[in-house]
Amino acid sequence: MAAAPIEELVRLLAKLPGLGPRSARRAALALLRRPDTLLAPLLAALEVCARNVRRCSVCGNLDTTDPCAICADPDRDPDLVLVVEQVEDLWAMERAGAFRGRYHVLGGTLSALDAVGPEELGVERLLRRVAERPRIEVVLALSATVAGQTTAHYLAERLKPTGARITRLGYGLPVGGELNYLDEGTLAAALAGRRPVG
Amino acid sequence: MAAAPIEELVRLLAKLPGLGPRSARRAALALLRRPDTLLAPLLAALEVCARNVRRCSVCGNLDTTDPCAICADPDRDPDLVLVVEQVEDLWAMERAGAFRGRYHVLGGTLSALDAVGPEELGVERLLRRVAERPRIEVVLALSATVAGQTTAHYLAERLKPTGARITRLGYGLPVGGELNYLDEGTLAAALAGRRPVG
Repeated sequence: MAAAPIEELVRLLAKLPGLGPRSARRAALALLRRPDTLLAPLLAALEVCARNVRRCSVCGNLDTTDPCAICADPDRDPDLVLVVEQVEDLWAMERAGAFRGRYHVLGGTLSALDAVGPEELGVERLLRRVAERPRIEVVLALSATVAGQTTAHYLAERLKPTGARITRLGYGLPVGGELNYLDEGTLAAALAGRRPVG
Repeated sequence: MAAAPIEELVRLLAKLPGLGPRSARRAALALLRRPDTLLAPLLAALEVCARNVRRCSVCGNLDTTDPCAICADPDRDPDLVLVVEQVEDLWAMERAGAFRGRYHVLGGTLSALDAVGPEELGVERLLRRVAERPRIEVVLALSATVAGQTTAHYLAERLKPTGARITRLGYGLPVGGELNYLDEGTLAAALAGRRPVG
């Protein structure tokens, strides 16, 4: 009902996660109202990304270089690989600034329903990386969900023959978490993972 | 912490209404994961909009033509002008499919704080349009907010000398609205606007 190019813009914006038809209309109008300060820069940023961003052939991260900046960084420990489901998990871990190793981005979890098998997740690529380094530690940093843990279990089985050290993230209270509001599973895990004080 | 072009894309997406930093990251990744089916079409749609969409010099609507399709449509009554705050209000009214007149898009409401005066809202342009048609009806379809009603009151005062018929939208229960959940103002307005039955 608006002009066809605007309708097309709204339709595509509505495909972005977090935007529905209504917020896509608002977003389209925000862009059209600010042609020079918002629409043009976004256009340019999308062009640069379309032209330059690719997947790292080593770890599956997205970057403008292949291997990505993390895989190419000599200061990052090549004997410590953190396996994550998605690039957003890698970003989150980088924001935390607590990890100085490298990554392996699966791109999802095993799912019979969505026909995601070991091949789609680059498991062979991970096994080859691990086999190349005898003293490597693989941290399975998958979500604490059924899909995440099923995948972690599968990966642990596949990695066992390599002799690599295999670990997972610790479970427990999130920082700032109030006992009152936490689920039973988290509380049980926190209890099981208790540490001596002082 | 991601590559600079990706960070730039996230920064710009986060400026869209409805997207915060977190959802902008998710949206950027959704685009980068689907370069051919989402990123490229969005890029093309933005380009087409940047090149072709402009403001209608008659009513302030956004369209690829000037005057816009509504102002140029001979089947739409030129003696009935609905004044709205924003283009999204025009779109909402068009979706309702109940209005066969034309529009005047103010682009906002009067606001001393944001330095929005009659000039920014194109009030003179509206007055000229109205003065040209002696039998015109102007429907003030502004929001039932303080800002909307202040602006409607101002417009009514300015329009009075033209002799035009000036109306506003009816107030009352929204369709599907339950009395139980409606505010006192709406209930009072619905009572005042009651109609005979049968």
